Amino acid sequence: MSFDLHHGIAVLERTPATFRALLANLPEAWTATNEGPDTFSPFDNVGHLIHGERTDWIPRAGIILAQGANRRFEPYDRFAQVRESAGKTLVQLLDEFADLRARNLETLTGWNLTDAHLALEGEHPELGSVTLRQLLATWVAHDLGHLAQTARVMAKQYRDAVGPWRAYLPVMDR
Amino acid sequence: MSFDLHHGIAVLERTPATFRALLANLPEAWTATNEGPDTFSPFDNVGHLIHGERTDWIPRAGIILAQGANRRFEPYDRFAQVRESAGKTLVQLLDEFADLRARNLETLTGWNLTDAHLALEGEHPELGSVTLRQLLATWVAHDLGHLAQTARVMAKQYRDAVGPWRAYLPVMDR
Repeated sequence: MSFDLHHGIAVLERTPATFRALLANLPEAWTATNEGPDTFSPFDNVGHLIHGERTDWIPRAGIILAQGANRRFEPYDRFAQVRESAGKTLVQLLDEFADLRARNLETLTGWNLTDAHLALEGEHPELGSVTLRQLLATWVAHDLGHLAQTARVMAKQYRDAVGPWRAYLPVMDR
Repeated sequence: MSFDLHHGIAVLERTPATFRALLANLPEAWTATNEGPDTFSPFDNVGHLIHGERTDWIPRAGIILAQGANRRFEPYDRFAQVRESAGKTLVQLLDEFADLRARNLETLTGWNLTDAHLALEGEHPELGSVTLRQLLATWVAHDLGHLAQTARVMAKQYRDAVGPWRAYLPVMDR
């Protein structure tokens, strides 16, 4: 389906509560484990979403909307959360994510974007020309991708525990 | 990690609220669409989880715990929800799932299961001998698999809308 601003916001505004319902006060055996070296635990996923709220979606949208001479985005640091989440609890991260997301959605709705705005372009450092519409669709899909990843990482902790049922659980081998 | 009853229940008791946070009152463009023929929409996923609450996890655990002459499980109908969810709203399904899950977790905790109980066996119609421990681990992993599936199906609705970012979103092509 094509991007629709109201449909997109409907997902974006639900993501913090979804992660909170899934993860708040779960044992660390679930939230601190990952899929191997350089992969994200549930805790890392929330930290990564926070980093996106601070440095990616709204700042990049701002660059596009400004239509200045330099429309090139800053590269995104996929592992920034290792540094930024250090010493924090998961509940602190869930709160921080919810606050940042709420503020960013206020900014987004305050822009009263039209189709003409959504067609404006910026320059991704690797992907080249991209539209504001594509950026906002990616914000939504990125949330959902990290929710899927979080659930998958958790499921895999029981890869051996499920015994022969592994054959019926494709999530175990994705 | 190995199955732990308290850790497992910690996930099982969060699943209904997680699906509610993600899906309640979302536009049908998100909840009624799937990945193609014979695949599940978010709506279908919730119906499928309800069917499991009624016919799979606790009934099968009961068969194992009874240790009767016939410990063979009934086969599971993976598409029962098409029939059973007909005419219901997603919010009705979310309520039904939450009620059934809460009752089933009361039953589970009321059993006061010991390691000896968890080692008891039943017979899966296709997989053969399975333990109660494996069945309960599968209940947990099955929840998480359907959460991952639901998020993935939603993300894929924006496969084209994200434009060149598709290359950075592995969830689009799983």
